[in-house]
Amino acid sequence: MSELRLGLAGLGNVGAELARLLTRDAGMLSARAGRPVRLVAVSARDRGRDRGVDLSKLAWEENAASLAARADVDAVVETIGGAEGAALDLARAALKAGKPFMTANKTLLAHHGQELAALSREKPGAALYFEAAVAGGIPVIKTLREALAGNRVEEIAGILNGTCNYILTAMRETGGDFAAIVKEAQALGYAETDPSYDLDGHDAADKLSILAALAFGMPLAAGGFGVEGIRAITAQDIGFARELGYRIKLLGMMKRTADGLARRVAPFMIPLNAMLAHVEGVTNAVILRGNVVGPLTLVGAGAGGGPTASAVLSDIIDCACGRRAVSFADSAPAATVPPEKSITSFYMRLMLKDQPGVLADITAVMRDARISIQSIIQHGRSAAAPVPVVFLTHEAPEKAFYDALSAIERLPSVLEKPCVLRILA
Amino acid sequence: MSELRLGLAGLGNVGAELARLLTRDAGMLSARAGRPVRLVAVSARDRGRDRGVDLSKLAWEENAASLAARADVDAVVETIGGAEGAALDLARAALKAGKPFMTANKTLLAHHGQELAALSREKPGAALYFEAAVAGGIPVIKTLREALAGNRVEEIAGILNGTCNYILTAMRETGGDFAAIVKEAQALGYAETDPSYDLDGHDAADKLSILAALAFGMPLAAGGFGVEGIRAITAQDIGFARELGYRIKLLGMMKRTADGLARRVAPFMIPLNAMLAHVEGVTNAVILRGNVVGPLTLVGAGAGGGPTASAVLSDIIDCACGRRAVSFADSAPAATVPPEKSITSFYMRLMLKDQPGVLADITAVMRDARISIQSIIQHGRSAAAPVPVVFLTHEAPEKAFYDALSAIERLPSVLEKPCVLRILA
Repeated sequence: MSELRLGLAGLGNVGAELARLLTRDAGMLSARAGRPVRLVAVSARDRGRDRGVDLSKLAWEENAASLAARADVDAVVETIGGAEGAALDLARAALKAGKPFMTANKTLLAHHGQELAALSREKPGAALYFEAAVAGGIPVIKTLREALAGNRVEEIAGILNGTCNYILTAMRETGGDFAAIVKEAQALGYAETDPSYDLDGHDAADKLSILAALAFGMPLAAGGFGVEGIRAITAQDIGFARELGYRIKLLGMMKRTADGLARRVAPFMIPLNAMLAHVEGVTNAVILRGNVVGPLTLVGAGAGGGPTASAVLSDIIDCACGRRAVSFADSAPAATVPPEKSITSFYMRLMLKDQPGVLADITAVMRDARISIQSIIQHGRSAAAPVPVVFLTHEAPEKAFYDALSAIERLPSVLEKPCVLRILA
Repeated sequence: MSELRLGLAGLGNVGAELARLLTRDAGMLSARAGRPVRLVAVSARDRGRDRGVDLSKLAWEENAASLAARADVDAVVETIGGAEGAALDLARAALKAGKPFMTANKTLLAHHGQELAALSREKPGAALYFEAAVAGGIPVIKTLREALAGNRVEEIAGILNGTCNYILTAMRETGGDFAAIVKEAQALGYAETDPSYDLDGHDAADKLSILAALAFGMPLAAGGFGVEGIRAITAQDIGFARELGYRIKLLGMMKRTADGLARRVAPFMIPLNAMLAHVEGVTNAVILRGNVVGPLTLVGAGAGGGPTASAVLSDIIDCACGRRAVSFADSAPAATVPPEKSITSFYMRLMLKDQPGVLADITAVMRDARISIQSIIQHGRSAAAPVPVVFLTHEAPEKAFYDALSAIERLPSVLEKPCVLRILA
């Protein structure tokens, strides 16, 4: 069978690893693909840098999009990153040229996936592959699209951001405070210099958008659902979670309910008997619940050069073998649960002035909002410093809870911003 | 695109569920396949039995193999079971007719997979699909063949038998003894009337053989490696495991080592910080470690009508979409580690006559075999009844350990058959 000649754009961590593997393992990859697979052209900013692989015999394009136009490139791999610019130009150029396009770029897909899927449908050769875009080395895309093809997906819950999971794990293991652990994570390369995209939940939200489009036909556009990060979590919350038999994890969650699709990114209290509680450090995990198969859990490396390259290589071999799946479900999108119907149990940690009547004020607000309290925990007392008091609620409508929370925050005895966590049922 | 017309052989638990789903979800499945998928003919022993689905409009074949010959059947699905007889006849007939053959039958593959793969290579249409043959609803075949196509697999470890895992979990949770829990499992339908195939490790061994062929190119023939079951495990061992911070699980294991491929089915002591320790009840789990992606863990339902049907449906949709993978790796098989080079730590529980000098005799045997003892645990004393004493060893060559064990078993103070478990590193 004829050769599959690849053009690769981006030679950062993932791209360089791919170039190395495509060179070193060419024999094995070609055998598995049933045809020769060869890297023929690359594009990156810095031509001179040593990337641990000999690129001297490859064609070099200054402009990434030019890779798509080359007659000697049959398929294009993109590891540049970013929603716009070179990555988007290259994606459009490749698909319009009727060439397969493989990407590790979640942001590109979350923002322009709909357009790229439409381009992919227009030309027979313009297949769109993106296994590496969600959860790195975990084959969640292939599993959703192919292995669960006989299922209606009922629920997806996942630890989709390794940075947050590393920080929460390190806080638990060391007792350290949020800011100190973030610095440590930055030093270790687990957090960016500006860590907002990870810490505020946007990275997990982009990944969840892609999964929502695949599993529930939701339109691929960033936003449209609640996204919270982990900045409010302190060592105190980690301590309360331990005492109560939970671990705190940032989850992306989607679930069909009688009222529609409930969907959010938020930190959750996870009971120790749930497998997700034991997924630690930078590891990612996704639970997919199908109506026929039941729950299926996938756990593995969610980022890093190797794991991400592994996912791209699976796309490359699928492409070489002619294996292809529909880009995104074209079913009617699921309706979204209105916030007043979304039901959850909450953990709320308040910092209170320790004086008579404080608890009476707070519990009165909750009673008026018809939120039932499961337990209240207060350790220690202090006339001088704010005292942490934790409230666990029974299941309550989100809107009622947040209305009550606003009222509680305005009470003069509530001294700092509360920390609110959902409790995984 | 033209219709895919299916013939289904076997209407037991899995077959009947498939017939129901192919009927009820025909619209969804056809949309996902990009072409109509329709069940047109079936074969089963009892035509009259109510299976919760209307089969009256389908063609009926007395002889399963006749399904393959029908002009109106494009692809054949087998859920009869068994290594020989009707299942094997049908498999040969379908592949020789150049028709895709899909099976949930691990025994058939473990015994005749090599022949069926060869038949599959001979005709272009004769694709061989068997996602449901290992670990039920967990897509371990697709993940190995496709998602990890860019990896050299270094290690596979899995809880592959739900019956054994149910029994070990129930022993731990209830404190009950082996025989009583097996009876309970039989009453619940989790164990067969003759449970030997499960309890003695043969079911896990057949599944491991299929994974060994896929990942390491090992010839598909039953046997050729150590297989132990769980019958020797008593409530005492469950208690010692708890005390030592382990859970006992029957594992199928394969690992590349400097001396070749180490491969076995045996009960292991698994430390609580390993995710496999938390896989309970009938749930299955598989860890696949690739050289590029690192460890990837898949957890889900390993048996049952729904989960198994889900896996077959994914094969059917792959088939309808023209997605196909090579049946088994054609790489040179990995060499097997000679037993004298296989290194493990052991748990050994002896039932001893409680008298002076017993420990001296046993430790002398172990010293002479150059097996280093990590700890010895004895609780309680009794002049009348045998006393359990547990030895944990440091890593030792298997052969040396088993030679020592034979010598120890012959000591007059050793009163019952020892229980030996490997310790997962």
